[in-house]
Amino acid sequence: MIVDCHGHYTTAPNGLKTFRQLQIEALEDPSRNPSKHSIKISDDEIRESLEGAQLKLQRDRGIDVTLFSPIAGQMAHHIGNAVTSQVWSEACNDLIYRVTQLYPDNYIGVCQLPQSSGVPPKSVIPELERCINELGFVGCNLNPDPSGGYWKDLPLSDRQWYPLYEKMVELDVPAMIHVSGTCNPGIHHTGAHYLNGDTTAFMQFLTSDVFKDFPTLKFVIPHGGGAVPYHWGRYRGLAQDMKRPPLQEHLLGNIFFDTCVYHQPGIDLLAKVIPVDNVLFATEMVGAVRGIDPETGYYFDDTKRYIDNVSWLTDEDRYKIFEGNARKVYPRVNPILDRIAKKAHDHA
Amino acid sequence: MIVDCHGHYTTAPNGLKTFRQLQIEALEDPSRNPSKHSIKISDDEIRESLEGAQLKLQRDRGIDVTLFSPIAGQMAHHIGNAVTSQVWSEACNDLIYRVTQLYPDNYIGVCQLPQSSGVPPKSVIPELERCINELGFVGCNLNPDPSGGYWKDLPLSDRQWYPLYEKMVELDVPAMIHVSGTCNPGIHHTGAHYLNGDTTAFMQFLTSDVFKDFPTLKFVIPHGGGAVPYHWGRYRGLAQDMKRPPLQEHLLGNIFFDTCVYHQPGIDLLAKVIPVDNVLFATEMVGAVRGIDPETGYYFDDTKRYIDNVSWLTDEDRYKIFEGNARKVYPRVNPILDRIAKKAHDHA
Repeated sequence: MIVDCHGHYTTAPNGLKTFRQLQIEALEDPSRNPSKHSIKISDDEIRESLEGAQLKLQRDRGIDVTLFSPIAGQMAHHIGNAVTSQVWSEACNDLIYRVTQLYPDNYIGVCQLPQSSGVPPKSVIPELERCINELGFVGCNLNPDPSGGYWKDLPLSDRQWYPLYEKMVELDVPAMIHVSGTCNPGIHHTGAHYLNGDTTAFMQFLTSDVFKDFPTLKFVIPHGGGAVPYHWGRYRGLAQDMKRPPLQEHLLGNIFFDTCVYHQPGIDLLAKVIPVDNVLFATEMVGAVRGIDPETGYYFDDTKRYIDNVSWLTDEDRYKIFEGNARKVYPRVNPILDRIAKKAHDHA
Repeated sequence: MIVDCHGHYTTAPNGLKTFRQLQIEALEDPSRNPSKHSIKISDDEIRESLEGAQLKLQRDRGIDVTLFSPIAGQMAHHIGNAVTSQVWSEACNDLIYRVTQLYPDNYIGVCQLPQSSGVPPKSVIPELERCINELGFVGCNLNPDPSGGYWKDLPLSDRQWYPLYEKMVELDVPAMIHVSGTCNPGIHHTGAHYLNGDTTAFMQFLTSDVFKDFPTLKFVIPHGGGAVPYHWGRYRGLAQDMKRPPLQEHLLGNIFFDTCVYHQPGIDLLAKVIPVDNVLFATEMVGAVRGIDPETGYYFDDTKRYIDNVSWLTDEDRYKIFEGNARKVYPRVNPILDRIAKKAHDHA
């Protein structure tokens, strides 16, 4: 089974964008705040938005199921206030829920959190609980920079995050570290901020004792870990200079990297440097890079091909990357994947 | 000849730190501002600071000469105002000049610029001219985030930078893109900000037409280019999606990467992905990572070993990485390197 742990609903029907525009226009006049129930998107629109895009690419590439979350670039936790983010997150998560109901064999929900710059993160707990307990989601996306490119908020090692971490442990769900779009003219979102967010978060964990306090807390750092695997020697050396434990012991029981690296040499490095137990297959399609690589004739984000090409991976390694590690890091996928596998088996 | 294009005077004698402390203490009472001439550092102190550290490591590793600049982490352009930065930069650059006079065969000067967050960059031009024309320096370090981890200033593509770029072209000197320490509790300087600065700057150039406006302007992106080579497919794809020219044509006539990547797989990737004409040897020693890698028994930052180990590089490739590209990117090193080479030859 091939599980893609990182997909966003980037092709969401226009009704979502319209709602968001109304919400932003209402920032100056709260009486005009739209209700999330005002969103007009039909099931057919959802089907159309996926059939020619993510679902087609899933089939073309042999991907069975995707952990699917709202558009990362539009979480925009820097816009408005905590209420703005609450309503927007509920709306986005509800739409993901509808996708998982229409395509229960293809999509598993991961939620956006209603973070807001300057607001203590414990405020997101009710929405996390709703998504996990009521909507059947299996994880969340956590934005380490709700200020959108200005890094005004406290690091992930700060105790203000601990109530959320306690809840994640209790619910047995991981978070993918994922920044959103930026409001900073110098920081391009998919070309700089995403990778910087990954790198920054890793270093925040390296310099902290979060995982002493939460031994079972788990994070996925996407985009192949930002700059981290390429600079693995730097990080091993920094940890050593700082008298931290070796990275394997200090962080790799809790931190995992996805495979959203869009060329063969990058995936080769990832597979060489990071233990196979810490690598989860992902594409982030349809996402940051949408074209075909003229050097290969395949989509840049067709990351399964790169992993297939890594000659030294064993069958057991591939199982871990494509399925086993997702089952371990996102324990709530297990009954869902078992159901899908049984259905496929019965069908065959 | 082996030219290390990236070294900082991290072992500068304590007199420099004392001066900086006085300067910071005087921020609230400008009448107490120390003069740069008050710094007390003897030639013997300079010799001692280098003989057991950078000079010893140069000899141990077979490095001939280092492009040497003030401590990057302490440029701290977010402290004080433009005058603070002016005096501090002059003091630091003067000290580098003394190093180049004491060890003219080992060190070539690269200057710190007196940037200040919120101040138009043209204000740094007089100090750049002084360092190049009067002190014989060959390049400068340019901080893309003078706000120290908050990214409050305008991107490198903004026209506010153009007067500086015009002067760099006129003087025929490149800039190394190099952030400084941070005043942001969430952003570790050597473990996150340095790499993020590199990545961010690359993307600022990718999305701009700076090199159409300045076809001979040159930048070195240090730390192996931050996250960029690891995500080279992402950047090729982003450029393609944005209808920018291919990266080779769009950026690689003007942007170069150093080899400060502290493990073999990282250097292998760099050498595989980035054209050899765009890679300059560097160590940044004594710098971010000071220990010995227990996996190899050698210093993490002994990057010459990694390059020596890249099996597919030809002698011509190695010449470019170790010397030729430095001569091309920093044209003002040529008479200096020629003099050193002649002296070594006459001596032999």
